[in-house]
Amino acid sequence: MRIALCQINPTVGDVDGNAAKIAAWIERARDAGAELAIFPELCVPGYPAEDLYLKRHFLAANVAAVEELAKGVEPGITVLIGFAEPAEGGGDYRHAYNSLAVLADGAVQHVYRKNRLPNYSVFDEQRYFIPGEAADATEVAGTRVGLTICEDVWSPGGPGQAAADAGARIVANPSGSPYHRGKGHEREEMFGERAREYDSYFAFVNLVGGQDELVFDGQSFLLAPDGSVLARAAQFDEDLVVVDVPLEDGAPAPSAEPLPDLDEVYGALVLGLHDYVEKNGFRHVGLGISGGIDSALVAILAVDAVGPERVSMVVMPSPHSSEETQDDARQIARNLGTELLDFPIEPMMDGYAEALGDVLDGLAAENIQARIRGNLMMALSNRNGWLVLTTGNKSEMSVGYATLYGDMAGGFAVIKDVPKTLVYQLVERRNERAGRELVPAAVIERPPSAELRPDQLDSDSLPDYDLLDRILEAYVERDQGSGEMVAAGLPAEIVDEVIRLVDRAEYKRRQAAPGIRITPKAFGRDRRLPITNRFGG
Amino acid sequence: MRIALCQINPTVGDVDGNAAKIAAWIERARDAGAELAIFPELCVPGYPAEDLYLKRHFLAANVAAVEELAKGVEPGITVLIGFAEPAEGGGDYRHAYNSLAVLADGAVQHVYRKNRLPNYSVFDEQRYFIPGEAADATEVAGTRVGLTICEDVWSPGGPGQAAADAGARIVANPSGSPYHRGKGHEREEMFGERAREYDSYFAFVNLVGGQDELVFDGQSFLLAPDGSVLARAAQFDEDLVVVDVPLEDGAPAPSAEPLPDLDEVYGALVLGLHDYVEKNGFRHVGLGISGGIDSALVAILAVDAVGPERVSMVVMPSPHSSEETQDDARQIARNLGTELLDFPIEPMMDGYAEALGDVLDGLAAENIQARIRGNLMMALSNRNGWLVLTTGNKSEMSVGYATLYGDMAGGFAVIKDVPKTLVYQLVERRNERAGRELVPAAVIERPPSAELRPDQLDSDSLPDYDLLDRILEAYVERDQGSGEMVAAGLPAEIVDEVIRLVDRAEYKRRQAAPGIRITPKAFGRDRRLPITNRFGG
Repeated sequence: MRIALCQINPTVGDVDGNAAKIAAWIERARDAGAELAIFPELCVPGYPAEDLYLKRHFLAANVAAVEELAKGVEPGITVLIGFAEPAEGGGDYRHAYNSLAVLADGAVQHVYRKNRLPNYSVFDEQRYFIPGEAADATEVAGTRVGLTICEDVWSPGGPGQAAADAGARIVANPSGSPYHRGKGHEREEMFGERAREYDSYFAFVNLVGGQDELVFDGQSFLLAPDGSVLARAAQFDEDLVVVDVPLEDGAPAPSAEPLPDLDEVYGALVLGLHDYVEKNGFRHVGLGISGGIDSALVAILAVDAVGPERVSMVVMPSPHSSEETQDDARQIARNLGTELLDFPIEPMMDGYAEALGDVLDGLAAENIQARIRGNLMMALSNRNGWLVLTTGNKSEMSVGYATLYGDMAGGFAVIKDVPKTLVYQLVERRNERAGRELVPAAVIERPPSAELRPDQLDSDSLPDYDLLDRILEAYVERDQGSGEMVAAGLPAEIVDEVIRLVDRAEYKRRQAAPGIRITPKAFGRDRRLPITNRFGG
Repeated sequence: MRIALCQINPTVGDVDGNAAKIAAWIERARDAGAELAIFPELCVPGYPAEDLYLKRHFLAANVAAVEELAKGVEPGITVLIGFAEPAEGGGDYRHAYNSLAVLADGAVQHVYRKNRLPNYSVFDEQRYFIPGEAADATEVAGTRVGLTICEDVWSPGGPGQAAADAGARIVANPSGSPYHRGKGHEREEMFGERAREYDSYFAFVNLVGGQDELVFDGQSFLLAPDGSVLARAAQFDEDLVVVDVPLEDGAPAPSAEPLPDLDEVYGALVLGLHDYVEKNGFRHVGLGISGGIDSALVAILAVDAVGPERVSMVVMPSPHSSEETQDDARQIARNLGTELLDFPIEPMMDGYAEALGDVLDGLAAENIQARIRGNLMMALSNRNGWLVLTTGNKSEMSVGYATLYGDMAGGFAVIKDVPKTLVYQLVERRNERAGRELVPAAVIERPPSAELRPDQLDSDSLPDYDLLDRILEAYVERDQGSGEMVAAGLPAEIVDEVIRLVDRAEYKRRQAAPGIRITPKAFGRDRRLPITNRFGG
């Protein structure tokens, strides 16, 4: 049987646009001789559409699109598409199933309902969907194809095993599986186990694209019953992979090689930013560039995501900004070929100093500089329709080393889930790939500083980033308590101080712009902690 | 049997503090001769503690507290307390049950596990807890007491009915049931049905207190088997209600009368603000006061919540601020007896105008005024440790009629769930209760204006608030589509425009401060929509 893995990038809520794309890809699959075309989970309404799934008129619109698509399916091909199926009688507080429509011969032949609904990490599917209770399969060209959706196969047993036990030779698994670093490898390992348990071929078809905080990385694949990868689709891009099952001996199957680790993270960030810009209809992005490593990374990401002609960089020096960092900032803009604007902030600092007198001291004086810059960026955004990118990294967001309404002002926080140590690695790797210093070496080598007072260094207030990032990984990503961390060899005093800082910064993070998740636990829908919280760690 | 309804206000995460409070209240209940003392749901760890429930060391701390409390329970009284019970073997991604410990004779006698876990609206209990599967009861002084927790009894059947069928004469229902307008009445109606179905007494014991967005209103009660209210605890305050079952004929039971509608909403706002301030350890709050109705309401609420000596008001006039509104602002501060600070913003407006030139036009020029004010408030906060209160109402937050990092700058958005029409009613009612014009009549009568350009009125940009609030209620609170709204008589063109505005403002709301939920659907954990969303309505 010839199978098409249809790895598409739909847009949440764009039911008509998604349906048009699916129709075009069904044609492409047919033209390639496919007998079975598999599309990702919930590709008609988009995923995750969150509380849109609670709106009955949204459900009605996505059903109408499925029915219209079915009419266009000519004999000879079976198509699996994901949609939100309204519950008859209305359900409880939920009104829908997370379903797969089997389209063939101009009609919806039947519907499979996802059995296992994830409700952890970034997932809230039990808020929206009623679980299905039956396994299901469909007959394609004389072969039985088991139907599952994403989470259904993330543990043994369940509807995948049941379908295999009932004779399925191929298990299809349309998915909406979001990225974190190394996730593609995890999936191939785990689904390899499933293929062996099922003793069947296994077709994983993932979404690709950015949706607010999430990136779907694609990397769909077809596994043989022994778990080996027969074909693999691209990461971070749409891809149509057509492959015959069983493969003729020696026949080549299309297989994209997985990207190396740092390039993979970089690719996720580029796609997440690109899609946030494009799906929200922004024509241009702007960012403040300081000459520091964080804004340097965001600058290259922006240029790689939307092109230099759609990026403006703004240098906003204060009396505390060194000539060297300003020069580096301007050099980065020149290297990348973007517009560069220059707005010294001293006149406005003087205005506030005059109005506020001795109120403006210490922290208040530092923050006002960041906030003047935030105001300038937002004025430029108001005037020019820019999406303003913020440049804070995960280490800073964790401990609250950032100014609300200052450097945190903006619509998208591109690297908010990238720890500082990884920021350096990504910049170095990007320079390496460019074969030249897109980011000057001095930016990488200079000790980090917010430059909000004379001779300020991050290390005045924070532990070394190597140590900080290790503590943060244990506390934020692995939910460890101080006892566990200290037992693992981390220094008690610093651990306690970091925990205190992270907990106290919750109110800032609550008002932060969304940004792209690249770790197993990002701030956002992934880590939900109260602001009012007296538990120390 | 003598029952004590122990309506306490715990703090999320403060396991030791909560346990100490519970121990003290057990003593009070014993002193009053109670044989059964019922505390609210999850009162030991606090509720909702969100992802704290995923931390194993947090679970361990709350178990230790329960065991310690049990040791102190002397013969003659049975105590029901809510805690998060770690799952043996660790569970799946969840590690705990939402449980009730039955304490008597110095030990935990047994544990009931909540069967029905709500996962809709503001609730995410299926993210945290494994459902229990058995009904349960305990014997107190020869009477069988059925054990349930909150959601267990929100529909017929289930563990409440099972316990009654097995002979329970009283069904206990420790709860964490958050407030919305009119909720107390809804509960008494619905639980009256349960009491009749069970043919038993029904003891609802609710949390009281504010927790970030939520207010728990208390209003615990004891119902007779015919559904009538035998005793009722206070709203918005801790209360110990001791009552005998069955009541002797003619014996009086302690019963607080429910507050009238507007006073109830007002009470919820005062408690929510009070607890946010106190539980987060703020000594002082500040707000910008414009002479408009919204900041007037927040000002009175602040004074009622923490007292005038802990409130500072800041007048920040621009050249567009009329003398009348400034005078009214100052009058309100005088009427309420708070500190009043004055910072004209023109010098800073000039600074930005000089630096930005023709960038500063139209919307940018309007927003910069709001952002200068935001900066001033935050500088005062940095200097003095204030919690800054924002003053935007629900109507404005819905349509995005607010400036990010400007009037939206602050830590707590007190009235963000209060529609504009209700803002007026609350101020009028508060004046009435005061017997004088705490808020001058001119503030109530003047047409609303943001005063960001000459002669600006809200009605230049928005429909009349009466109409706007009707559309918002249908769209935001009831998830209706435009077709449904127009069919109900709302004007099509305005409906479509309001939907567009609400959808487009999602990115602003994502960066808004948390505020107090008083309607059945607030912005926040209650309404989760993607920013990237092409569905029109």
